[in-house]
Amino acid sequence: MPRFEDPETLVERIQAFWDAGIPMAGHMRVRLVRLDEGGLVARAPLAANRNHMGTAFGGSVHGVATLAGWGLVLALLEVPQATDLVIQESRIRFLRPVTGDFEAHCEMPPAPAPERFLRLFNARGRARITVEARVRQGNSTAAEFTGVFAALRQEGKTPG
Amino acid sequence: MPRFEDPETLVERIQAFWDAGIPMAGHMRVRLVRLDEGGLVARAPLAANRNHMGTAFGGSVHGVATLAGWGLVLALLEVPQATDLVIQESRIRFLRPVTGDFEAHCEMPPAPAPERFLRLFNARGRARITVEARVRQGNSTAAEFTGVFAALRQEGKTPG
Repeated sequence: MPRFEDPETLVERIQAFWDAGIPMAGHMRVRLVRLDEGGLVARAPLAANRNHMGTAFGGSVHGVATLAGWGLVLALLEVPQATDLVIQESRIRFLRPVTGDFEAHCEMPPAPAPERFLRLFNARGRARITVEARVRQGNSTAAEFTGVFAALRQEGKTPG
Repeated sequence: MPRFEDPETLVERIQAFWDAGIPMAGHMRVRLVRLDEGGLVARAPLAANRNHMGTAFGGSVHGVATLAGWGLVLALLEVPQATDLVIQESRIRFLRPVTGDFEAHCEMPPAPAPERFLRLFNARGRARITVEARVRQGNSTAAEFTGVFAALRQEGKTPG
């Protein structure tokens, strides 16, 4: 299981990507609240993400889960500025309405997936990985998300 | 294939749901630009939906497709204020980066799906339907979306 050498700096970098680079992340008011070897947790308030029924808009639930998955894979790479990282496909099941603030808990994929992803990326400059996230309101699971992310090292750029 | 008796009013109602009820729809600047027996088209500008790489954020692409699917099913029901309509699950494949304004084209499901959906909803007060949408930039398909939507008639309310 990967260990992050400097998780505080990674959290700042990922949050800065969201805040500065993705206007919708700002509108959803997504905050990265945890990053460790177990995974990544992103939190969002209901108010900014509500629908016409006063529950969370499905697009926001999916969006926060997508950012959580993207953030975890970016943290695995640890060289975010030299990498294009995009989502290739996703699937989400909505289990119950979200009636309050919510969190997307993206779990670290089990070994050997992270190690294989990094080995391929370092060798070939491209790799992909599947991550799963549960969207929770308190202790209740409201949605289950699976995303496939692809990393592609940009030509002419070096890590750092 | 269903025919809408008053598509202009349906377009106004659906756009009003988005604008008044779903803040994220407003932030994504989604506009309903077509509704007829062939389906529904929702348009969104890249600028409001960009990511850190200057292409469309996957969460926005999914969000606009979700709103398009939701709008088409709401139009089928023609009694939106008496109905809870939610997304149950979705799947999306991102085929290529979106580098400009984009549209989600949600096709009318082929017969007999719409008729069966309406018959079940009218008989039981609940039904679900699967819809597909293509996200396009110009003539190029950038993403393929499938969503399952569930309608549940609210107790104690009559249509209209």
